[in-house]
Amino acid sequence: MSDAALPIAVFDSGVGGLTVLRALRAEMPEEDFIYLGDTARLPYGTKSADTVCRYALQASALLVDRGVKCLVVACNTASSVALPALDARFGPLPVVGVIEPGASAAVRASGTVRVAVIATEGTVRGNAYPRAIARIRPDVEVIQRACALFVSLAEEGWTDGPIAEAVARRYLEPLFRAEEPPDTLLLGCTHFPALMAPIRRVLGERVRIVDSAATTAEATDACLSSLGLRRRSGIGSVHLAATDGPERFARVGSIFSGEPINPDDVELLDL
Amino acid sequence: MSDAALPIAVFDSGVGGLTVLRALRAEMPEEDFIYLGDTARLPYGTKSADTVCRYALQASALLVDRGVKCLVVACNTASSVALPALDARFGPLPVVGVIEPGASAAVRASGTVRVAVIATEGTVRGNAYPRAIARIRPDVEVIQRACALFVSLAEEGWTDGPIAEAVARRYLEPLFRAEEPPDTLLLGCTHFPALMAPIRRVLGERVRIVDSAATTAEATDACLSSLGLRRRSGIGSVHLAATDGPERFARVGSIFSGEPINPDDVELLDL
Repeated sequence: MSDAALPIAVFDSGVGGLTVLRALRAEMPEEDFIYLGDTARLPYGTKSADTVCRYALQASALLVDRGVKCLVVACNTASSVALPALDARFGPLPVVGVIEPGASAAVRASGTVRVAVIATEGTVRGNAYPRAIARIRPDVEVIQRACALFVSLAEEGWTDGPIAEAVARRYLEPLFRAEEPPDTLLLGCTHFPALMAPIRRVLGERVRIVDSAATTAEATDACLSSLGLRRRSGIGSVHLAATDGPERFARVGSIFSGEPINPDDVELLDL
Repeated sequence: MSDAALPIAVFDSGVGGLTVLRALRAEMPEEDFIYLGDTARLPYGTKSADTVCRYALQASALLVDRGVKCLVVACNTASSVALPALDARFGPLPVVGVIEPGASAAVRASGTVRVAVIATEGTVRGNAYPRAIARIRPDVEVIQRACALFVSLAEEGWTDGPIAEAVARRYLEPLFRAEEPPDTLLLGCTHFPALMAPIRRVLGERVRIVDSAATTAEATDACLSSLGLRRRSGIGSVHLAATDGPERFARVGSIFSGEPINPDDVELLDL
Protein backbone atom coordinates (compact mmCIF):
# COMPACT_ATOMS: atom_id res chain seq x y z
CA MET A 1 0.00 0.00 0.00
CA SER A 2 1.39 3.38 -0.96
CA ASP A 3 1.43 6.08 1.69
CA ALA A 4 -1.25 8.05 -0.16
CA ALA A 5 -3.70 5.20 0.50
CA LEU A 6 -3.29 5.50 4.25
CA PRO A 7 -5.89 7.31 6.37
CA ILE A 8 -5.53 10.77 7.90
CA ALA A 9 -5.42 10.69 11.70
CA VAL A 10 -7.36 13.32 13.64
CA PHE A 11 -6.66 13.65 17.34
CA ASP A 12 -8.73 15.60 19.85
CA SER A 13 -9.23 15.71 23.59
CA GLY A 14 -12.88 14.76 23.11
CA VAL A 15 -15.74 15.41 20.76
CA GLY A 16 -15.24 19.09 19.85
CA GLY A 17 -12.69 18.12 17.19
CA LEU A 18 -15.54 16.56 15.22
CA THR A 19 -16.15 20.11 13.90
CA VAL A 20 -12.62 19.93 12.41
CA LEU A 21 -13.25 16.40 11.09
CA ARG A 22 -16.37 17.69 9.37
CA ALA A 23 -14.38 20.45 7.65
CA LEU A 24 -11.66 17.97 6.66
CA ARG A 25 -14.20 15.63 5.07
CA ALA A 26 -15.82 18.49 3.18
CA GLU A 27 -12.39 19.56 1.86
CA MET A 28 -11.16 16.04 1.07
CA PRO A 29 -14.09 13.66 0.56
CA GLU A 30 -11.81 11.07 -1.08
CA GLU A 31 -9.77 10.50 2.08
CA ASP A 32 -10.18 7.97 4.87
CA PHE A 33 -10.10 9.37 8.39
CA ILE A 34 -9.47 7.88 11.78
CA TYR A 35 -10.52 10.11 14.67
CA LEU A 36 -9.55 9.62 18.30
CA GLY A 37 -11.11 11.57 21.17
CA ASP A 38 -9.19 11.23 24.45
CA THR A 39 -12.44 11.33 26.39
CA ALA A 40 -11.00 9.48 29.39
CA ARG A 41 -8.84 12.49 30.20
CA LEU A 42 -10.75 15.44 28.83
CA PRO A 43 -10.88 18.36 29.17
CA TYR A 44 -7.35 19.39 28.27
CA GLY A 45 -8.31 23.08 28.49
CA THR A 46 -7.87 23.42 32.24
CA LYS A 47 -4.72 21.29 32.56
CA SER A 48 -1.06 22.27 32.64
CA ALA A 49 1.09 22.30 29.51
CA ASP A 50 3.22 19.36 30.71
CA THR A 51 0.19 17.20 31.35
CA VAL A 52 -1.45 18.08 28.02
CA CYS A 53 1.80 17.31 26.23
CA ARG A 54 2.10 13.89 27.85
CA TYR A 55 -1.54 13.03 27.11
CA ALA A 56 -1.29 14.20 23.49
CA LEU A 57 1.81 12.09 22.88
CA GLN A 58 0.25 8.96 24.39
CA ALA A 59 -3.06 9.29 22.58
CA SER A 60 -1.52 10.25 19.22
CA ALA A 61 0.74 7.20 19.39
CA LEU A 62 -2.37 4.99 19.33
CA LEU A 63 -3.29 6.55 15.98
CA VAL A 64 0.17 6.68 14.46
CA ASP A 65 0.81 3.02 15.32
CA ARG A 66 -2.07 2.05 13.04
CA GLY A 67 -0.35 3.52 9.99
CA VAL A 68 -1.49 6.98 8.91
CA LYS A 69 -0.15 9.50 6.44
CA CYS A 70 -0.70 12.65 8.47
CA LEU A 71 -1.71 13.69 12.01
CA VAL A 72 -4.16 16.56 12.46
CA VAL A 73 -4.32 17.91 16.01
CA ALA A 74 -7.87 19.26 16.21
CA CYS A 75 -7.67 20.26 19.88
CA ASN A 76 -6.64 23.89 20.30
CA THR A 77 -5.08 23.29 23.68
CA ALA A 78 -2.99 20.37 22.43
CA SER A 79 -2.05 22.30 19.28
CA SER A 80 -0.94 25.23 21.39
CA VAL A 81 1.43 23.31 23.65
CA ALA A 82 2.21 19.88 22.17
CA LEU A 83 2.97 20.48 18.49
CA PRO A 84 6.78 20.62 18.82
CA ALA A 85 6.77 17.45 20.94
CA LEU A 86 4.49 15.65 18.48
CA ASP A 87 6.70 16.75 15.58
CA ALA A 88 9.81 15.52 17.33
CA ARG A 89 8.24 12.18 18.18
CA PHE A 90 6.40 11.34 14.98
CA GLY A 91 8.31 13.25 12.30
CA PRO A 92 8.78 12.92 9.32
CA LEU A 93 5.03 12.24 9.53
CA PRO A 94 3.38 15.60 8.82
CA VAL A 95 1.67 17.05 11.90
CA VAL A 96 -0.89 19.84 11.38
CA GLY A 97 -2.30 21.88 14.27
CA VAL A 98 -5.20 24.33 14.32
CA ILE A 99 -3.37 27.38 15.72
CA GLU A 100 -1.44 28.59 12.66
CA PRO A 101 -4.39 28.18 10.26
CA GLY A 102 -6.73 29.91 12.72
CA ALA A 103 -4.30 32.77 13.30
CA SER A 104 -3.84 33.22 9.58
CA ALA A 105 -7.64 33.29 8.98
CA ALA A 106 -8.05 35.93 11.70
CA VAL A 107 -5.32 38.16 10.24
CA ARG A 108 -6.88 37.93 6.78
CA ALA A 109 -10.34 38.76 8.20
CA SER A 110 -9.34 41.78 10.29
CA GLY A 111 -9.35 45.17 8.62
CA THR A 112 -8.61 47.15 11.78
CA VAL A 113 -5.77 44.83 12.86
CA ARG A 114 -7.53 44.27 16.17
CA VAL A 115 -8.50 40.66 16.92
CA ALA A 116 -10.26 39.12 19.93
CA VAL A 117 -9.49 35.47 20.71
CA ILE A 118 -11.70 33.29 22.89
CA ALA A 119 -10.47 29.87 23.94
CA THR A 120 -10.01 27.56 26.91
CA GLU A 121 -7.97 28.58 29.93
CA GLY A 122 -5.00 26.48 28.78
CA THR A 123 -4.90 27.95 25.29
CA VAL A 124 -5.20 31.52 26.61
CA ARG A 125 -2.53 30.97 29.26
CA GLY A 126 -0.11 29.60 26.67
CA ASN A 127 -0.55 32.67 24.42
CA ALA A 128 -0.34 30.47 21.33
CA TYR A 129 -2.71 32.60 19.23
CA PRO A 130 -1.12 35.99 20.03
CA ARG A 131 2.30 34.52 19.21
CA ALA A 132 1.09 32.92 15.97
CA ILE A 133 -0.66 36.12 14.91
CA ALA A 134 2.45 38.21 15.71
CA ARG A 135 4.56 35.91 13.51
CA ILE A 136 2.21 36.61 10.58
CA ARG A 137 1.64 40.30 11.22
CA PRO A 138 3.31 41.89 14.25
CA ASP A 139 1.14 45.02 14.33
CA VAL A 140 -2.10 43.13 15.03
CA GLU A 141 -3.42 43.85 18.49
CA VAL A 142 -4.79 40.72 20.19
CA ILE A 143 -6.99 40.50 23.26
CA GLN A 144 -7.94 37.16 24.77
CA ARG A 145 -10.49 35.67 27.11
CA ALA A 146 -11.00 32.16 28.47
CA CYS A 147 -14.66 31.07 28.12
CA ALA A 148 -14.92 27.83 30.09
CA LEU A 149 -18.71 27.80 30.25
CA PHE A 150 -19.02 27.75 26.47
CA VAL A 151 -17.58 24.23 26.57
CA SER A 152 -20.15 22.92 29.04
CA LEU A 153 -23.03 24.75 27.35
CA ALA A 154 -22.09 23.11 24.04
CA GLU A 155 -21.70 19.66 25.62
CA GLU A 156 -25.05 20.03 27.42
CA GLY A 157 -26.64 20.88 24.08
CA TRP A 158 -27.78 24.28 25.38
CA THR A 159 -26.38 25.97 22.30
CA ASP A 160 -28.98 28.71 22.02
CA GLY A 161 -31.61 30.47 24.09
CA PRO A 162 -31.52 32.98 26.94
CA ILE A 163 -28.87 31.19 29.04
CA ALA A 164 -26.41 30.75 26.16
CA GLU A 165 -26.95 34.37 25.16
CA ALA A 166 -26.47 35.69 28.71
CA VAL A 167 -23.24 33.72 29.05
CA ALA A 168 -22.03 34.97 25.65
CA ARG A 169 -22.87 38.53 26.66
CA ARG A 170 -20.98 38.25 29.93
CA TYR A 171 -17.87 36.85 28.25
CA LEU A 172 -17.85 38.92 25.09
CA GLU A 173 -19.13 42.39 25.88
CA PRO A 174 -16.05 43.41 27.90
CA LEU A 175 -13.86 42.44 24.93
CA PHE A 176 -15.72 44.72 22.52
CA ARG A 177 -16.34 47.68 24.84
CA ALA A 178 -13.11 49.51 23.95
CA GLU A 179 -13.16 52.78 22.02
CA GLU A 180 -11.57 51.00 19.07
CA PRO A 181 -12.92 47.48 19.48
CA PRO A 182 -11.71 44.41 17.57
CA ASP A 183 -13.47 43.77 14.26
CA THR A 184 -12.73 40.05 14.31
CA LEU A 185 -13.45 37.27 16.81
CA LEU A 186 -11.40 34.09 16.54
CA LEU A 187 -13.10 31.01 18.00
CA GLY A 188 -10.04 29.32 19.49
CA CYS A 189 -11.78 26.18 20.74
CA THR A 190 -13.46 23.46 18.69
CA HIS A 191 -16.58 23.64 20.87
CA PHE A 192 -17.36 27.26 20.19
CA PRO A 193 -18.79 27.04 16.64
CA ALA A 194 -21.76 25.21 18.23
CA LEU A 195 -22.61 28.54 19.95
CA MET A 196 -22.44 30.62 16.80
CA ALA A 197 -26.07 31.82 17.02
CA PRO A 198 -25.91 33.48 20.47
CA ILE A 199 -22.37 34.78 19.82
CA ARG A 200 -23.57 36.37 16.59
CA ARG A 201 -26.55 38.01 18.33
CA VAL A 202 -24.34 39.50 21.04
CA LEU A 203 -21.77 40.86 18.59
CA GLY A 204 -24.06 41.99 15.79
CA GLU A 205 -23.17 41.80 12.11
CA ARG A 206 -20.15 44.10 12.13
CA VAL A 207 -17.76 41.69 13.83
CA ARG A 208 -16.28 38.93 11.66
CA ILE A 209 -16.23 35.51 13.33
CA VAL A 210 -13.60 33.02 12.19
CA ASP A 211 -12.76 29.55 13.38
CA SER A 212 -9.90 27.20 12.67
CA ALA A 213 -11.80 24.28 11.21
CA ALA A 214 -12.07 25.33 7.55
CA THR A 215 -8.56 26.81 7.34
CA THR A 216 -7.05 23.77 9.05
CA ALA A 217 -8.72 21.58 6.43
CA GLU A 218 -7.21 23.74 3.67
CA ALA A 219 -3.78 23.62 5.33
CA THR A 220 -3.95 19.83 5.61
CA ASP A 221 -4.98 19.53 1.97
CA ALA A 222 -2.10 21.78 0.87
CA CYS A 223 0.39 19.87 3.01
CA LEU A 224 -0.64 16.45 1.67
CA SER A 225 -0.75 17.73 -1.91
CA SER A 226 2.78 19.14 -1.65
CA LEU A 227 3.99 15.74 -0.48
CA GLY A 228 2.13 13.87 -3.21
CA LEU A 229 0.00 12.15 -0.58
CA ARG A 230 -3.50 13.20 -1.63
CA ARG A 231 -5.96 10.65 -2.95
CA ARG A 232 -7.66 11.92 -6.05
CA SER A 233 -10.62 9.55 -6.39
CA GLY A 234 -12.97 7.34 -4.43
CA ILE A 235 -15.18 8.03 -1.46
CA GLY A 236 -13.44 8.06 1.91
CA SER A 237 -14.51 6.45 5.15
CA VAL A 238 -14.47 7.56 8.80
CA HIS A 239 -13.48 5.46 11.77
CA LEU A 240 -14.23 6.89 15.22
CA ALA A 241 -12.52 5.93 18.46
CA ALA A 242 -12.51 7.20 22.04
CA THR A 243 -10.58 6.39 25.20
CA ASP A 244 -13.77 6.26 27.28
CA GLY A 245 -17.54 5.99 27.12
CA PRO A 246 -18.63 5.40 23.48
CA GLU A 247 -22.23 6.17 24.51
CA ARG A 248 -21.46 9.67 25.71
CA PHE A 249 -19.09 10.18 22.78
CA ALA A 250 -21.93 9.36 20.38
CA ARG A 251 -24.56 11.45 22.17
CA VAL A 252 -22.49 14.60 22.71
CA GLY A 253 -20.45 14.12 19.55
CA SER A 254 -23.58 14.30 17.42
CA ILE A 255 -23.87 17.98 18.47
CA PHE A 256 -20.50 18.69 16.84
CA SER A 257 -20.33 16.28 13.93
CA GLY A 258 -23.52 17.56 12.32
CA GLU A 259 -24.92 14.05 11.97
CA PRO A 260 -26.04 11.33 14.38
CA ILE A 261 -23.33 8.97 15.66
CA ASN A 262 -24.14 5.38 16.57
CA PRO A 263 -22.33 4.31 19.79
CA ASP A 264 -21.73 0.87 18.25
CA ASP A 265 -19.57 2.57 15.60
CA VAL A 266 -17.23 4.09 18.21
CA GLU A 267 -14.22 1.94 19.05
CA LEU A 268 -13.04 2.01 22.66
CA LEU A 269 -9.25 2.35 22.89
CA ASP A 270 -7.57 1.77 26.23
CA LEU A 271 -4.73 4.03 27.27
CA MET B 1 3.81 6.55 66.24
CA SER B 2 0.45 5.03 67.09
CA ASP B 3 -2.13 4.79 64.33
CA ALA B 4 -4.26 7.47 65.99
CA ALA B 5 -1.46 9.98 65.36
CA LEU B 6 -1.61 9.45 61.59
CA PRO B 7 -3.41 11.89 59.32
CA ILE B 8 -6.80 11.38 57.70
CA ALA B 9 -6.56 11.15 53.89
CA VAL B 10 -9.15 12.93 51.80
CA PHE B 11 -9.32 12.07 48.11
CA ASP B 12 -11.23 13.98 45.45
CA SER B 13 -11.22 14.35 41.67
CA GLY B 14 -10.41 18.03 42.05
CA VAL B 15 -11.23 20.96 44.29
CA GLY B 16 -14.91 20.37 45.06
CA GLY B 17 -13.97 17.97 47.85
CA LEU B 18 -12.58 20.93 49.76
CA THR B 19 -16.20 21.46 50.94
CA VAL B 20 -15.97 18.02 52.55
CA LEU B 21 -12.52 18.80 53.99
CA ARG B 22 -13.97 21.93 55.54
CA ALA B 23 -16.73 19.92 57.23
CA LEU B 24 -14.21 17.31 58.42
CA ARG B 25 -12.01 19.98 60.00
CA ALA B 26 -15.00 21.57 61.72
CA GLU B 27 -16.02 18.17 63.12
CA MET B 28 -12.49 17.06 64.11
CA PRO B 29 -10.23 20.09 64.60
CA GLU B 30 -7.63 17.96 66.41
CA GLU B 31 -6.88 15.82 63.36
CA ASP B 32 -4.24 16.21 60.64
CA PHE B 33 -5.51 15.97 57.08
CA ILE B 34 -3.85 15.28 53.77
CA TYR B 35 -6.00 16.14 50.76
CA LEU B 36 -5.34 15.06 47.19
CA GLY B 37 -7.23 16.45 44.19
CA ASP B 38 -6.70 14.42 41.00
CA THR B 39 -6.82 17.60 38.92
CA ALA B 40 -4.81 16.09 36.04
CA ARG B 41 -7.72 13.81 35.22
CA LEU B 42 -10.79 15.68 36.42
CA PRO B 43 -13.69 15.70 35.96
CA TYR B 44 -14.67 12.17 36.96
CA GLY B 45 -18.37 13.01 36.56
CA THR B 46 -18.56 12.43 32.81
CA LYS B 47 -16.32 9.35 32.69
CA SER B 48 -17.19 5.65 32.71
CA ALA B 49 -17.27 3.61 35.92
CA ASP B 50 -14.21 1.54 34.91
CA THR B 51 -12.12 4.61 34.24
CA VAL B 52 -13.18 6.35 37.46
CA CYS B 53 -12.38 3.18 39.40
CA ARG B 54 -8.88 2.94 37.93
CA TYR B 55 -8.17 6.63 38.56
CA ALA B 56 -9.47 6.47 42.13
CA LEU B 57 -7.28 3.45 42.95
CA GLN B 58 -4.15 5.07 41.49
CA ALA B 59 -4.65 8.43 43.17
CA SER B 60 -5.69 6.98 46.54
CA ALA B 61 -2.57 4.81 46.56
CA LEU B 62 -0.47 8.00 46.61
CA LEU B 63 -2.19 8.99 49.85
CA VAL B 64 -2.27 5.58 51.49
CA ASP B 65 1.43 5.04 50.81
CA ARG B 66 2.23 8.01 53.01
CA GLY B 67 0.69 6.35 56.06
CA VAL B 68 -2.84 7.41 56.97
CA LYS B 69 -5.43 6.09 59.38
CA CYS B 70 -8.49 6.47 57.21
CA LEU B 71 -9.42 7.32 53.60
CA VAL B 72 -12.33 9.66 52.97
CA VAL B 73 -13.56 9.64 49.35
CA ALA B 74 -15.00 13.14 48.97
CA CYS B 75 -15.87 12.78 45.28
CA ASN B 76 -19.46 11.62 44.75
CA THR B 77 -18.67 9.96 41.44
CA ALA B 78 -15.74 8.01 42.89
CA SER B 79 -17.77 7.12 46.00
CA SER B 80 -20.57 5.83 43.83
CA VAL B 81 -18.48 3.44 41.74
CA ALA B 82 -15.09 2.83 43.37
CA LEU B 83 -15.80 2.19 47.07
CA PRO B 84 -15.81 -1.65 46.87
CA ALA B 85 -12.56 -1.60 44.86
CA LEU B 86 -10.92 0.83 47.32
CA ASP B 87 -12.06 -1.31 50.25
CA ALA B 88 -10.67 -4.45 48.66
CA ARG B 89 -7.34 -2.80 47.88
CA PHE B 90 -6.68 -0.82 51.04
CA GLY B 91 -8.65 -2.69 53.74
CA PRO B 92 -8.45 -3.04 56.71
CA LEU B 93 -7.87 0.72 56.38
CA PRO B 94 -11.31 2.29 56.91
CA VAL B 95 -12.67 3.85 53.71
CA VAL B 96 -15.56 6.33 54.03
CA GLY B 97 -17.53 7.58 51.03
CA VAL B 98 -20.07 10.38 50.75
CA ILE B 99 -23.00 8.42 49.30
CA GLU B 100 -24.28 6.56 52.38
CA PRO B 101 -24.04 9.60 54.69
CA GLY B 102 -25.76 11.81 52.07
CA ALA B 103 -28.51 9.27 51.48
CA SER B 104 -29.09 8.93 55.19
CA ALA B 105 -29.29 12.73 55.64
CA ALA B 106 -31.85 12.97 52.81
CA VAL B 107 -34.04 10.25 54.28
CA ARG B 108 -33.98 11.94 57.71
CA ALA B 109 -34.87 15.31 56.13
CA SER B 110 -37.77 14.14 53.97
CA GLY B 111 -41.25 14.12 55.51
CA THR B 112 -43.06 13.20 52.31
CA VAL B 113 -40.61 10.40 51.39
CA ARG B 114 -39.97 12.05 48.05
CA VAL B 115 -36.37 13.09 47.42
CA ALA B 116 -34.77 14.79 44.41
CA VAL B 117 -31.07 14.10 43.80
CA ILE B 118 -28.89 16.29 41.60
CA ALA B 119 -25.38 15.13 40.72
CA THR B 120 -22.95 14.63 37.84
CA GLU B 121 -23.81 12.44 34.89
CA GLY B 122 -21.64 9.59 36.23
CA THR B 123 -23.25 9.59 39.67
CA VAL B 124 -26.76 9.72 38.20
CA ARG B 125 -26.04 6.96 35.68
CA GLY B 126 -24.68 4.69 38.44
CA ASN B 127 -27.88 5.11 40.53
CA ALA B 128 -25.79 5.08 43.70
CA TYR B 129 -28.07 7.47 45.63
CA PRO B 130 -31.38 5.74 44.75
CA ARG B 131 -29.83 2.42 45.77
CA ALA B 132 -28.40 3.79 49.02
CA ILE B 133 -31.70 5.47 49.89
CA ALA B 134 -33.65 2.27 49.13
CA ARG B 135 -31.39 0.32 51.50
CA ILE B 136 -32.26 2.74 54.31
CA ARG B 137 -35.96 3.17 53.50
CA PRO B 138 -37.37 1.34 50.48
CA ASP B 139 -40.57 3.41 50.22
CA VAL B 140 -38.73 6.68 49.46
CA GLU B 141 -39.35 7.86 45.92
CA VAL B 142 -36.19 9.27 44.29
CA ILE B 143 -35.93 11.35 41.13
CA GLN B 144 -32.56 12.35 39.73
CA ARG B 145 -31.05 14.87 37.34
CA ALA B 146 -27.51 15.44 36.10
CA CYS B 147 -26.55 19.13 36.36
CA ALA B 148 -23.24 19.43 34.51
CA LEU B 149 -23.31 23.21 34.20
CA PHE B 150 -23.41 23.66 37.96
CA VAL B 151 -19.85 22.32 38.04
CA SER B 152 -18.52 24.84 35.53
CA LEU B 153 -20.50 27.72 37.05
CA ALA B 154 -18.97 26.95 40.43
CA GLU B 155 -15.44 26.61 39.00
CA GLU B 156 -15.85 29.88 37.08
CA GLY B 157 -16.86 31.57 40.33
CA TRP B 158 -20.26 32.54 38.85
CA THR B 159 -22.00 31.22 41.92
CA ASP B 160 -24.82 33.74 42.01
CA GLY B 161 -26.58 36.26 39.80
CA PRO B 162 -28.99 35.97 36.85
CA ILE B 163 -27.04 33.31 34.91
CA ALA B 164 -26.63 30.97 37.89
CA GLU B 165 -30.30 31.44 38.75
CA ALA B 166 -31.48 30.80 35.17
CA VAL B 167 -29.41 27.60 35.02
CA ALA B 168 -30.75 26.48 38.41
CA ARG B 169 -34.30 27.18 37.23
CA ARG B 170 -33.82 25.18 34.04
CA TYR B 171 -32.41 22.17 35.88
CA LEU B 172 -34.60 22.19 38.98
CA GLU B 173 -38.08 23.34 38.02
CA PRO B 174 -38.93 20.17 36.07
CA LEU B 175 -38.01 18.11 39.15
CA PHE B 176 -40.41 19.99 41.40
CA ARG B 177 -43.30 20.44 38.96
CA ALA B 178 -45.09 17.19 39.90
CA GLU B 179 -48.41 17.21 41.71
CA GLU B 180 -46.72 15.80 44.78
CA PRO B 181 -43.22 17.23 44.44
CA PRO B 182 -40.19 16.17 46.50
CA ASP B 183 -39.72 18.06 49.76
CA THR B 184 -35.97 17.44 49.87
CA LEU B 185 -33.13 18.15 47.46
CA LEU B 186 -29.90 16.20 47.94
CA LEU B 187 -26.82 17.93 46.52
CA GLY B 188 -24.99 14.88 45.21
CA CYS B 189 -21.86 16.68 44.01
CA THR B 190 -19.29 18.51 46.10
CA HIS B 191 -19.46 21.54 43.79
CA PHE B 192 -23.12 22.24 44.30
CA PRO B 193 -23.08 23.80 47.79
CA ALA B 194 -21.28 26.76 46.18
CA LEU B 195 -24.55 27.46 44.32
CA MET B 196 -26.75 27.34 47.40
CA ALA B 197 -28.04 30.92 47.00
CA PRO B 198 -29.57 30.59 43.49
CA ILE B 199 -30.78 27.03 44.23
CA ARG B 200 -32.53 28.29 47.34
CA ARG B 201 -34.17 31.16 45.45
CA VAL B 202 -35.51 28.81 42.76
CA LEU B 203 -36.89 26.28 45.26
CA GLY B 204 -38.18 28.64 47.93
CA GLU B 205 -38.10 27.89 51.64
CA ARG B 206 -40.31 24.80 51.64
CA VAL B 207 -37.78 22.42 50.14
CA ARG B 208 -35.07 21.09 52.44
CA ILE B 209 -31.60 21.11 50.91
CA VAL B 210 -29.07 18.60 52.23
CA ASP B 211 -25.53 17.81 51.21
CA SER B 212 -23.14 15.05 52.14
CA ALA B 213 -20.34 17.08 53.65
CA ALA B 214 -21.53 17.45 57.25
CA THR B 215 -22.91 13.91 57.54
CA THR B 216 -19.77 12.43 55.98
CA ALA B 217 -17.73 14.27 58.62
CA GLU B 218 -19.94 12.79 61.36
CA ALA B 219 -19.67 9.30 59.84
CA THR B 220 -15.87 9.59 59.69
CA ASP B 221 -15.74 10.75 63.30
CA ALA B 222 -17.95 7.85 64.42
CA CYS B 223 -15.89 5.35 62.43
CA LEU B 224 -12.55 6.52 63.88
CA SER B 225 -13.98 6.72 67.40
CA SER B 226 -15.27 3.14 67.22
CA LEU B 227 -11.77 1.99 66.21
CA GLY B 228 -10.08 4.02 68.96
CA LEU B 229 -8.32 6.09 66.31
CA ARG B 230 -9.55 9.61 67.20
CA ARG B 231 -7.12 12.17 68.51
CA ARG B 232 -8.55 13.94 71.50
CA SER B 233 -6.31 17.00 71.84
CA GLY B 234 -4.10 19.34 69.86
CA ILE B 235 -4.71 21.42 66.77
CA GLY B 236 -4.54 19.58 63.49
CA SER B 237 -2.84 20.58 60.26
CA VAL B 238 -3.81 20.38 56.59
CA HIS B 239 -1.56 19.34 53.74
CA LEU B 240 -2.88 19.93 50.21
CA ALA B 241 -1.74 18.13 47.07
CA ALA B 242 -2.87 17.95 43.43
CA THR B 243 -1.88 15.93 40.38
CA ASP B 244 -1.77 19.04 38.18
CA GLY B 245 -1.63 22.83 38.23
CA PRO B 246 -1.19 24.06 41.83
CA GLU B 247 -2.05 27.60 40.64
CA ARG B 248 -5.46 26.68 39.34
CA PHE B 249 -6.02 24.41 42.34
CA ALA B 250 -5.38 27.36 44.64
CA ARG B 251 -7.47 29.85 42.69
CA VAL B 252 -10.52 27.67 42.10
CA GLY B 253 -10.11 25.75 45.36
CA SER B 254 -10.47 28.96 47.35
CA ILE B 255 -14.12 29.10 46.15
CA PHE B 256 -14.78 25.77 47.87
CA SER B 257 -12.49 25.77 50.88
CA GLY B 258 -13.91 28.96 52.33
CA GLU B 259 -10.45 30.47 52.76
CA PRO B 260 -7.69 31.60 50.41
CA ILE B 261 -5.21 28.93 49.33
CA ASN B 262 -1.61 29.82 48.52
CA PRO B 263 -0.36 27.93 45.43
CA ASP B 264 3.02 27.50 47.13
CA ASP B 265 1.28 25.38 49.78
CA VAL B 266 -0.04 22.91 47.21
CA GLU B 267 2.22 19.94 46.57
CA LEU B 268 2.34 18.61 42.99
CA LEU B 269 2.12 14.81 42.88
CA ASP B 270 2.88 13.03 39.66
CA LEU B 271 0.73 10.12 38.63
